[in-house]
Amino acid sequence: MDQNLQVRLRSLPLEAVEAAQFELRSAPLPTPAPGEVLVRAHYLSLDPYMRKRLADAVQGRVALAPGDLMMGRTVGEVVESRDPGFRPGEAVLGWGGWQRYAAEPAGRLEKVAPVAGLPLSVHLGVLGRPGITAWLGVVHVAKVQAGERMVVSSAAGAVGSLAGQMGRHLGAQVTGIAGGTRKCRAVVEELGLHACMDYKSPSFVQDLQEATPQGLEVCFENVGAAVLDATFDRMNENGRIAVCGLLGQYHSGPPYAYRNFARVLDRALQVTGFRIDAHPQLHERARADLRAWLQAGVFRQWETVSQGLESAPAAFVAMLEGRGQGKTLVQVT
Amino acid sequence: MDQNLQVRLRSLPLEAVEAAQFELRSAPLPTPAPGEVLVRAHYLSLDPYMRKRLADAVQGRVALAPGDLMMGRTVGEVVESRDPGFRPGEAVLGWGGWQRYAAEPAGRLEKVAPVAGLPLSVHLGVLGRPGITAWLGVVHVAKVQAGERMVVSSAAGAVGSLAGQMGRHLGAQVTGIAGGTRKCRAVVEELGLHACMDYKSPSFVQDLQEATPQGLEVCFENVGAAVLDATFDRMNENGRIAVCGLLGQYHSGPPYAYRNFARVLDRALQVTGFRIDAHPQLHERARADLRAWLQAGVFRQWETVSQGLESAPAAFVAMLEGRGQGKTLVQVT
Repeated sequence: MDQNLQVRLRSLPLEAVEAAQFELRSAPLPTPAPGEVLVRAHYLSLDPYMRKRLADAVQGRVALAPGDLMMGRTVGEVVESRDPGFRPGEAVLGWGGWQRYAAEPAGRLEKVAPVAGLPLSVHLGVLGRPGITAWLGVVHVAKVQAGERMVVSSAAGAVGSLAGQMGRHLGAQVTGIAGGTRKCRAVVEELGLHACMDYKSPSFVQDLQEATPQGLEVCFENVGAAVLDATFDRMNENGRIAVCGLLGQYHSGPPYAYRNFARVLDRALQVTGFRIDAHPQLHERARADLRAWLQAGVFRQWETVSQGLESAPAAFVAMLEGRGQGKTLVQVT
Repeated sequence: MDQNLQVRLRSLPLEAVEAAQFELRSAPLPTPAPGEVLVRAHYLSLDPYMRKRLADAVQGRVALAPGDLMMGRTVGEVVESRDPGFRPGEAVLGWGGWQRYAAEPAGRLEKVAPVAGLPLSVHLGVLGRPGITAWLGVVHVAKVQAGERMVVSSAAGAVGSLAGQMGRHLGAQVTGIAGGTRKCRAVVEELGLHACMDYKSPSFVQDLQEATPQGLEVCFENVGAAVLDATFDRMNENGRIAVCGLLGQYHSGPPYAYRNFARVLDRALQVTGFRIDAHPQLHERARADLRAWLQAGVFRQWETVSQGLESAPAAFVAMLEGRGQGKTLVQVT
């Protein structure tokens, strides 16, 4: 059997995240204790919440220090099992982190059923946390209805690309917000959204205004900061804002100062922050919908896959910088 | 019959509101047209929303110009009726504005039943818009439950003093926020709140933190700006913030910039702006509860009453500056 390979944190990012803040290490193959299962990762999921974890570590809010293994969701196969519930060869979803092999407690693993014609990575995308998160925001929090006008920020991202397509499938007119004209064009042409605004454009605030002449009933927010501040101003009476992420403010330095918050009162808005782990009782319902929509061809699944664990740091930085589209994954070889 | 007396706007407030921006005028007694009713005001209600109207007028968002009559809610008696539904001597709630007599369309008037032992002003307080507004925020929006921890800003104000007492009656532990130690003491000693923090104190942010060691489930917000920004930070997971007013930012100049908005995501908060006129279907239920609570002695009713219409400008400024307690009224003589 081969050795284990890991990506560990070399230093905490005080400003931007850089690939040099991580290092590749060889390690002995972990030995599963009783009740544990040795899993070989096929795919590692790279997600925006990891950026927030690093920011929280800088501020001392989470215990994560140089030398530590980076955590992360993985899908892979059982190599060795010391738990009666799992057998070698089975496909499982786990929290293996940025490494090739992980010995995980059986209770933290979930068996996944193969989906015909799709790689295992679907369990980290549409049927995984991005899909469930998008479903929670669109269906449970914002309760998007046919005929409504909706905006989704980070519309080319893992969660945003699914949230936008869900809104469209439910009959809403969906405007995306993304960075760069090329990405915006893809959101319209490939994901089928009504329009997509480039938040990097100097005329963004005015562009959003012109693109939403009748205002908005729903906002699915992934970015926050100036993007959300501009959106506050476009919301109609009784609008709902589902706050899924605030990627635009996961940095050191003073927090972004919102100037249009008063619209919450002026327009009687409902602003709701939500997190996937706070709603475990809804995950089954979400997965059932997602599986049905997947089979009905509702989603164009965007994946940005890099090859080999050694590519993880650069792939993570690229995701944070907004390069790539949809779900960012590492194919662990 | 005597002449009419009015308070009209002399100039729009670019900065602070001052009494000199209003002027007293004599006018002929209005003649009711068919379908109208001539009402003599007993009490005129002075409210924070009037400040917002003036600010909106400065920015051209509402049509209100020098020379115009100031609008406002009044309770009074019918003097002459040209509508079959009203008869002289009946007590009515209307929108007479800052004047002694008003000819109002019958459809804008509401008959009010006398409450034993209480002056007509109760219909501008507990049984009027302040009471209904407090009820909507506490019962309908925030859904305060026994055992919860709640904060209410402008706790000595017309709406805040009722919202705080309602929360306490429903079994919550209620912390008030008000301006000045004397006012804070009265909120605790007379209204029976658990504690009251002085937002004018330089240690306010720390005081609030120390007064709420277990955090807060509910916030009833009347002030916004730095007060709400400090409260964001004290909210517990899944907390609810009912935004009733943002009096702290009804001024010209740049809007207040909120720095702790990210708590909406961190703590999965629900922030809901609401306005009394958006929920007409709930007013009857609110009034039934308010009447029952009033009879059960739940409320200490604070009123600050000034005598004579000519006192309205100074009374309005005093209310905006936070002098006075509870409902601000002018007894129109």
